[in-house]
Amino acid sequence: MTNVVRFLPDDAEIRVEKGENLLAAAAKAGVYIHAYCGGDGVCGKCKVKIKEGDVSSDHSQKLKASEHEQAMRLACQTFVTSDMVVEIPEEVNKEGKVLKRKPKTTRAISARSLDDLIGTWDVNPPVEKRFLKIAPPTAEDNISDLQRLQRALQKDYGGEMKAMTYDHPEMLRELPFILREADWEVTVIILRCKLPEEPNRIIAVEPGDTTDRLYGLAVDIGTTTVGGILLDLNTGEVLAESSAYNAQIRYGEDVISRIIYSQRPGGLERLQERVVYTINEIIQAICREQVISPSDISYIMAAGNTIMSHLFLGVNPKWVREAPYVPVCSQFPLTRAATLGVMAHPSVRLFLYPAVASYVGGDIVSGIHACRMYSSPELTLFIDIGTNGEIVVGNQDWMMCTACSAGPAFEGGGIKYGMRASSGAIENFHIHPETYEPMIITVEQSKARGICGSGLISIVSELLEARVIDPQGKFNRSLEHPRIRQGEDGYEYVLVWGKESLTREDIVITEVDIDNFIRAKGAMYAGYQTLLDSVGMSFSDLDRVILAGNFGAYIDLERAISIGMLPDIDRDKFYYLGNASLLGAQISLTDRVRFMERIKARALMTNMELSENSDFMNHYMAALFLPHTDMSLFPSVQKKLAGD
Amino acid sequence: MTNVVRFLPDDAEIRVEKGENLLAAAAKAGVYIHAYCGGDGVCGKCKVKIKEGDVSSDHSQKLKASEHEQAMRLACQTFVTSDMVVEIPEEVNKEGKVLKRKPKTTRAISARSLDDLIGTWDVNPPVEKRFLKIAPPTAEDNISDLQRLQRALQKDYGGEMKAMTYDHPEMLRELPFILREADWEVTVIILRCKLPEEPNRIIAVEPGDTTDRLYGLAVDIGTTTVGGILLDLNTGEVLAESSAYNAQIRYGEDVISRIIYSQRPGGLERLQERVVYTINEIIQAICREQVISPSDISYIMAAGNTIMSHLFLGVNPKWVREAPYVPVCSQFPLTRAATLGVMAHPSVRLFLYPAVASYVGGDIVSGIHACRMYSSPELTLFIDIGTNGEIVVGNQDWMMCTACSAGPAFEGGGIKYGMRASSGAIENFHIHPETYEPMIITVEQSKARGICGSGLISIVSELLEARVIDPQGKFNRSLEHPRIRQGEDGYEYVLVWGKESLTREDIVITEVDIDNFIRAKGAMYAGYQTLLDSVGMSFSDLDRVILAGNFGAYIDLERAISIGMLPDIDRDKFYYLGNASLLGAQISLTDRVRFMERIKARALMTNMELSENSDFMNHYMAALFLPHTDMSLFPSVQKKLAGD
Repeated sequence: MTNVVRFLPDDAEIRVEKGENLLAAAAKAGVYIHAYCGGDGVCGKCKVKIKEGDVSSDHSQKLKASEHEQAMRLACQTFVTSDMVVEIPEEVNKEGKVLKRKPKTTRAISARSLDDLIGTWDVNPPVEKRFLKIAPPTAEDNISDLQRLQRALQKDYGGEMKAMTYDHPEMLRELPFILREADWEVTVIILRCKLPEEPNRIIAVEPGDTTDRLYGLAVDIGTTTVGGILLDLNTGEVLAESSAYNAQIRYGEDVISRIIYSQRPGGLERLQERVVYTINEIIQAICREQVISPSDISYIMAAGNTIMSHLFLGVNPKWVREAPYVPVCSQFPLTRAATLGVMAHPSVRLFLYPAVASYVGGDIVSGIHACRMYSSPELTLFIDIGTNGEIVVGNQDWMMCTACSAGPAFEGGGIKYGMRASSGAIENFHIHPETYEPMIITVEQSKARGICGSGLISIVSELLEARVIDPQGKFNRSLEHPRIRQGEDGYEYVLVWGKESLTREDIVITEVDIDNFIRAKGAMYAGYQTLLDSVGMSFSDLDRVILAGNFGAYIDLERAISIGMLPDIDRDKFYYLGNASLLGAQISLTDRVRFMERIKARALMTNMELSENSDFMNHYMAALFLPHTDMSLFPSVQKKLAGD
Repeated sequence: MTNVVRFLPDDAEIRVEKGENLLAAAAKAGVYIHAYCGGDGVCGKCKVKIKEGDVSSDHSQKLKASEHEQAMRLACQTFVTSDMVVEIPEEVNKEGKVLKRKPKTTRAISARSLDDLIGTWDVNPPVEKRFLKIAPPTAEDNISDLQRLQRALQKDYGGEMKAMTYDHPEMLRELPFILREADWEVTVIILRCKLPEEPNRIIAVEPGDTTDRLYGLAVDIGTTTVGGILLDLNTGEVLAESSAYNAQIRYGEDVISRIIYSQRPGGLERLQERVVYTINEIIQAICREQVISPSDISYIMAAGNTIMSHLFLGVNPKWVREAPYVPVCSQFPLTRAATLGVMAHPSVRLFLYPAVASYVGGDIVSGIHACRMYSSPELTLFIDIGTNGEIVVGNQDWMMCTACSAGPAFEGGGIKYGMRASSGAIENFHIHPETYEPMIITVEQSKARGICGSGLISIVSELLEARVIDPQGKFNRSLEHPRIRQGEDGYEYVLVWGKESLTREDIVITEVDIDNFIRAKGAMYAGYQTLLDSVGMSFSDLDRVILAGNFGAYIDLERAISIGMLPDIDRDKFYYLGNASLLGAQISLTDRVRFMERIKARALMTNMELSENSDFMNHYMAALFLPHTDMSLFPSVQKKLAGD
């Protein structure tokens, strides 16, 4: 359910999910409301008047009774429950003059439908269950238990089935007991063959009829976060989702520090154990929620970057970090999950998406697989932004891919008050063009603790647009404002005063932070250019830009373009894919025909190393500017600036 | 090298291996020489005169100097080193009358050439090695270590090779270190694919060039003895052999007592561990001898009866013993040997021959596979004599098989002084038709300790022929002789007096022993008849009889036929196959084309249960006679008796 909210006097409209916070809706619509407590209801500044529509709002609002009667509300404490019209009161400056409202400049483009990107898929998983009522042995018919099972199975398949083989001695050890205790009524879990001549494989036998319980787990092994979803493989339905911080984090925030840690005695084993621990946490959470046992999961598909994949398998990743940057392996074996320590039935297979190179991993292949770039004639730019920005450009005929070491700025690293997108992180920001006062939206609308990646984009673009900083990211030294000051690390802007922050510290953004951010976005942009150049193409040739990754889904397109982080092309060409890695694993787990297509996806992808590429270095230097030194690359931004 | 020995005055000739003991040669030729110490040189009775030829003989012979000068020797201390003519001195009875020599009645038929039975095979093993000099990675060529290895391998195969896959994470953990420590010169061990579309599989990588070391191990897992041979898979050559008593023996002599033990708490695990221990003993012995490491063995092929196969895999065999006698499994999985506890590289596969039924196991399938009954039009009777006598009859179009519980008589069980064929076991016996004095040959010509299976056949047939016992196995009560007496268990014949035996006890054969023996041979014979009857055939239809098993190789055909243990047909139709189970595994290990034929072999074999078969019971009752109640089945024996 969605509702439309119209803000007056700006006359800005936005469609939001029912229940959305009104302050957050305003921020998304690009409507400035003075609010600096992050949405906690403390500052009491964000008063609005509800002109039309119902609202649910907290009665403890810091409002006078008279204000309440006049339908005044604190936006941060108000939630959208119908279509509404909301009026933002006029503000006056110290001299009593009405301040002009900042014109609407930015607006989050809501995600375009992904259906035509990812397509449909069937429920045709790599495993299946068959319930069998087996005739018990007699003197005249005393073939072995296993043959009896195989024969019953063949009959169940209408005799057309290929010879059935089976898995391993452990299964045989249990089989006779299960058959007899279940009175010869059992359910067989079958791993379906890949090759036409290959036999299907019996991987487990369960007493009674358990055909209604066929589960698969898709896992995205991220450097920071591991996510998992439980699928009902009978219906394709997502039953549960869970995620957890990768418990390797205490040994290093990024892949490089993990590699360094893995070289310490016992380090590799520790990291392997930690990521398995995290996956097991997810399995346990999901199983608790669904009241099933981990051994009810019949197949696991996982994807992770190359380093995560190596660490998960206990394979030393050290050569990834040393020139010429080779991974040990880029196609990973189909393992038994339990042999890695994963809580799973001993027969359960774990598939790990293949990587392309040291810094273009299985998570990217899974993403490409999910969005089917490999089967579309449209020239597509696929971007996964993180510490390492991975970029793929191409279509059904070819794909070039690379990773550029953007640095950790997008994930809060190298930023004085940087943090991940968790409670209290500033995720959206507006600045009043005259008062330079901020509008702060935090994750979970709690007191501000720091700045996450999407907040950083908002802050930099807003400061730039309000000319608080210049295109080189330097503060306008001529502005006199209490929030703009010389700090320990040079010039800074105070986002939240200590008295309103969770930490009681002033939360600021510094020139050093902005410089780090410019380097990060510059590396990404230079990456797009270098890949396109390498095939003699340019941004205008692009039919689509796909933003993958959880972070990608929070990027405000207009702002990201305005600071030169994304190419300045038709906004309708942009798609948000979300956690594409997990999506790819989910699709593969559900449909083995789609699963086979991963082979084509990966085969098309050609890696390009940027680290010693002189074109890349030139592009990079040119991109260390907001939005860019070559403004012809940013026509819409240029036009807007000219229109100011 | 063989030599011909001619014995006078009998004028019996025999061809023996150079170095054969002269007393043993005489026994094989059916020539009686009075000798009751077993060949230990103690009794000093076996004096012979060397008329022609060289001999090597022990100078400590109990002979007078004058005898020595007259070329007299103790046969038991003399070894054949050239063609010879040997004269047995005349014996006189108490009255000084020259005893007539017993005419030559029995003669071991030496094994017919097996070549046309087992055929030839190529050196085309399931594993192979390739030595690769790999170009190290560079910035321009930085594919993963594994891809680099795969690419080099593909080039080595002339590019024609199917996609190479690899084994398991353990391999990946070592790979980068091996490649770099070996300066990118490595040997790859490849498991060759079975299906045309299936990829070959890299199972291990070794530093440097180790292509000259490619070994396979064939193992026969017998209830009593486990045998192993090490093969050079580059040449097909047998490098070493070893065998050891199955260390399960302390938990029961036969399969039934092992099954019973396996039902005790921890019993199954103990038996599994014990058979693995035995195999490891063999591996260690072979590796010590060849100065190689167990991890140099690249493939293991094993065969055992159904119960041994279950116990080896740790699968409960209890249902084999309970009607309707079903095994858990009859086709065993290709396992990793190391997972069962076998000393082997973690990648090494262990193949276990499939069984047909509870009592027709992989050892029989391996034997049938070795002798290629499945590809010959000739009607063949295949016999493996042991506690359970396994019988197969058929040809390239069909095969019927069964097991008859002959009881342990052939292996020394149920026989008062029965023992296995080890040092001191009486393995050959002749009786003087007038004096009733014995000629005793023991294994390793040491002092007698007991009687093994082949000795038992000799004893029963000789006692029958000398009419010491009658066709029902009862002693001739009218004979008066110190060696024939009433003992604790009824009538008995003293084979060795206590003063000449190792144990200082009289070693005897009793009427009860003979009765047990008759039941055992009767069950075998009834088994042949029942199988032939079931397909409307008779002994005269047989083109070949193949005697498998170590015991089979020691059976004296004439004697075995004379007592009704083998069918009375043309002796030229008999073949000794020896340890056919081990031979099958050896062939499979060497030639994967032959290996594939096991599938046809097993598929042709149809099991028949005798335990409740009334035809079998009738045949069995009729066979409890020496040779048989129906003498028309034994025309040559009848003729000989008539000629007496």
